Amino acid sequence: MPQPQAAAFESPLVVASNRGPVSFRRDGAGELVAERGSGGLVTAIAGVLFESDATWLACAMTEGDREIAATGATTEVEPAGHAGFVDVAPERFAGYYNGISNRVLWQLHHHLFDLSYLPSWDAETREIWNDYREVNRMVAASLDTHADRDPVYLVQDYHLSLVPAFLRQLQPNARIAHFTHTPFAGQSFLGVLPSPMRDELLRGMLGADVLGFQAERWAENFLLCARDALPDAHVDVRRRRIRIGDRTVFIRTYPVSLDPEPLRATSRSREVRDIRKELLAWKEDAALLVRVDRLELSKNIVRGFQAFETFLHDRPDWHGKVRFLALLPRSRTEIPEYQIYAERVRELVDMINAKFGGAGWQPIEMRTDESYERAVAAYGIYDTLLVNPIFDGMNLVAMEGPLVNRQQGSLILSQNAGAFARLGRHTLAVNPFDVVETAEAIAAGLEMPRDERVRRARGLARAVLARNPVRWLTAQLRDLDVVRGIASQRSEELEEPERSIDFNIGDLDEALGRP
Amino acid sequence: MPQPQAAAFESPLVVASNRGPVSFRRDGAGELVAERGSGGLVTAIAGVLFESDATWLACAMTEGDREIAATGATTEVEPAGHAGFVDVAPERFAGYYNGISNRVLWQLHHHLFDLSYLPSWDAETREIWNDYREVNRMVAASLDTHADRDPVYLVQDYHLSLVPAFLRQLQPNARIAHFTHTPFAGQSFLGVLPSPMRDELLRGMLGADVLGFQAERWAENFLLCARDALPDAHVDVRRRRIRIGDRTVFIRTYPVSLDPEPLRATSRSREVRDIRKELLAWKEDAALLVRVDRLELSKNIVRGFQAFETFLHDRPDWHGKVRFLALLPRSRTEIPEYQIYAERVRELVDMINAKFGGAGWQPIEMRTDESYERAVAAYGIYDTLLVNPIFDGMNLVAMEGPLVNRQQGSLILSQNAGAFARLGRHTLAVNPFDVVETAEAIAAGLEMPRDERVRRARGLARAVLARNPVRWLTAQLRDLDVVRGIASQRSEELEEPERSIDFNIGDLDEALGRP
Repeated sequence: MPQPQAAAFESPLVVASNRGPVSFRRDGAGELVAERGSGGLVTAIAGVLFESDATWLACAMTEGDREIAATGATTEVEPAGHAGFVDVAPERFAGYYNGISNRVLWQLHHHLFDLSYLPSWDAETREIWNDYREVNRMVAASLDTHADRDPVYLVQDYHLSLVPAFLRQLQPNARIAHFTHTPFAGQSFLGVLPSPMRDELLRGMLGADVLGFQAERWAENFLLCARDALPDAHVDVRRRRIRIGDRTVFIRTYPVSLDPEPLRATSRSREVRDIRKELLAWKEDAALLVRVDRLELSKNIVRGFQAFETFLHDRPDWHGKVRFLALLPRSRTEIPEYQIYAERVRELVDMINAKFGGAGWQPIEMRTDESYERAVAAYGIYDTLLVNPIFDGMNLVAMEGPLVNRQQGSLILSQNAGAFARLGRHTLAVNPFDVVETAEAIAAGLEMPRDERVRRARGLARAVLARNPVRWLTAQLRDLDVVRGIASQRSEELEEPERSIDFNIGDLDEALGRP
Repeated sequence: MPQPQAAAFESPLVVASNRGPVSFRRDGAGELVAERGSGGLVTAIAGVLFESDATWLACAMTEGDREIAATGATTEVEPAGHAGFVDVAPERFAGYYNGISNRVLWQLHHHLFDLSYLPSWDAETREIWNDYREVNRMVAASLDTHADRDPVYLVQDYHLSLVPAFLRQLQPNARIAHFTHTPFAGQSFLGVLPSPMRDELLRGMLGADVLGFQAERWAENFLLCARDALPDAHVDVRRRRIRIGDRTVFIRTYPVSLDPEPLRATSRSREVRDIRKELLAWKEDAALLVRVDRLELSKNIVRGFQAFETFLHDRPDWHGKVRFLALLPRSRTEIPEYQIYAERVRELVDMINAKFGGAGWQPIEMRTDESYERAVAAYGIYDTLLVNPIFDGMNLVAMEGPLVNRQQGSLILSQNAGAFARLGRHTLAVNPFDVVETAEAIAAGLEMPRDERVRRARGLARAVLARNPVRWLTAQLRDLDVVRGIASQRSEELEEPERSIDFNIGDLDEALGRP
């Protein structure tokens, strides 16, 4: 296939994601004004992409977005770049978003189905899969309209798994990278999908030149899934590449990183300072355990509270001397499983507060309203931060907390978070299913000797700062050039893959034949 | 390490399993009499092992067994061989058997946990793990007492995962094979275990010289789990071997096979002939759909009935013309999850019968009492046999049915049964989670043209008969000799691994570097 004229570094960037970095609304004066979006994906990558003057396409979420979509053009956004929108009819969006993306793919990639009963694929599954396919096709068609300057396409996440193949049909020569922000299901779980959907998903992603993941284990899952499902794919697990048709696809890891500056600026803001003072006054001289998560099944909130209950049960000497501040903004409240989960969490918190609280002391303070400022304020003053997801692509909380914490706070981190590869050695590692281990980690975190706290807190901050979002982007662009023959193979090997103590990357290296 | 004197073929065999091939009770005259045990493991391998004059150790299940255990000796059993028993205190047995084996390991290996909530490891988990360890240690100690003739030890299944390492401590030079009759969990699921238990489980199994599995995918899961969990294990995924300490362990597949003779004898027995006549009279001229399974979560009984409901909904022309005979002996009735599942199944059957039945026609006939003879009678006369497990190590029903069926009946088979590797091409393959696909397979099975039925039925019988239990045993013995240096590497390569259409072994071969 013909090669692009310019290197990826020198080409315009066109990004696609379900939710964009900005949404538009009409203000009182009738002007369209941009509002910053939220969510982990945007937090993680919006900065670097707009610094690169990217064009960003997303599904329209507001009437303002739809007005822009109707123009067929993009609009400029601050600090640099352009935003465009794809207008999806509400019923179609429902099938694509809640139907497939959140109730099927999210659950599969996080291994969250109770397979004895669910899923049970029926005729409706086929209908909402059509919705998913159609929205992916629409996004690809919209991306195609931005083809005038031979751009690099950066397609984001599991909502848009089929976009690379649709875009490849429209532009056989396009340069496409797809990045998965979540985990990727193992073979047994991806095989739960109806076989034609599983194959369409894998082939959809393989329309890209480069498939990016947060951690080695998710990339390997993809390779093994493709090997088992696609007879015409030549899968080289060791070298992390797949040959399909006349194309080669790289399957690589590009761990998302944090830009420290905006976070530190927020932390220094008046609003956050005020909240921090309030929280300090509220907690009095108690030690502070904090968690910050969407109220989401994969975040393992129930077992986190069970562990705190076990800790309080085992350690009466801590009664009255510790507070657990749980900031858990509600999430996906229209999905029944999430409603049930939220109820279960509330009941558990009430039970623990009733069982152990009293005499002016309430062990758990839970807030389910959304406040980024309150989260950043809590980051500043925790003694121990609890991050125990069941599975997590990366986990930004585990990186944000240590960057702004002022207490040399300790971090309890699940071995199943992608961030564990980077931070694991400086944390109190937990198996997220192990309530006893997590309870012991809470005690160890709160009672850690000062010198160890300091050492670990420094290690955490250093590990977070060792990577940055620019590197996340440039590594993908470089691999796009290598796979398309614009740069040499050698430059591919300049970058060391991220090391992990948990995943035994040492052994993985050997298994994968790396030196 | 010093090598044994004799080849494994010429050495006495000592078998260990949780449940033995016989149990003993005192009859009216006060005599200890042997009664044949049941269960898939015993059905699959008891014949060939007793033909080889094996000694078989199991946990005592009856007072008679306990009497024999108390003598510390074994007792002769027909047709040849000896049985011995390990007497485990009831509370310890409860922790080992229902606690860990059935509610933890079985669930993990079949991927059946609802990870949002369960498991939640607590102090009790540690206690019952101690029970599991202790019973495994007792079984190893009992095996050690049969060491006088340098035997080959054949340890069976997930109940006894730790026996190989305990036995290795007692007899560093012992020849030990362990065989897993179930699936083996993928990394994400095995990692759900508390890390020390996961590591102990893997190291326990790696005490053997040869680890056997039913299918390539379960063997590969073990290899990948060991690679990720054990830093000192040198895992060669491609050549399916692990070097640990100064020993090499083979990780191989030995698919369990069926001895056709006893099954055909049962099928010809008077009792089975009588039941067959009754069933034929009962079904009148309706087509007959049959399933035979323990009432067990992994067997996917709920989705099977949902698929039949969908079939009846979509195909009113079949109303009154088909009967579904579901033979589902109750299983593990003391476990709450199984009670709930059985209730759910009963409600679903009643609902479907009420919704579609009437005018002398009841669509589903479910029997939950145990009758091997009724199952064999039903095998003889089904038009279509439904075998749709969520995951299954092998599945014997899928092999038994085609051997005695007289209708050129069609077979619907889950792609997630180990038996699919052998039988898949002759079956109507289904994704067990896909109710629509399963409903379509029921229609296709019942309406299959006569010549296709004949062709497939012949293919099924041929595929079942192409392997036999002797081969299952001899392949393990041969590999024991190879790994211990008694036979040459070359003889190892004489045996072709079983081919699979579903698992794309062609690609697996390439990935594993096989020619």
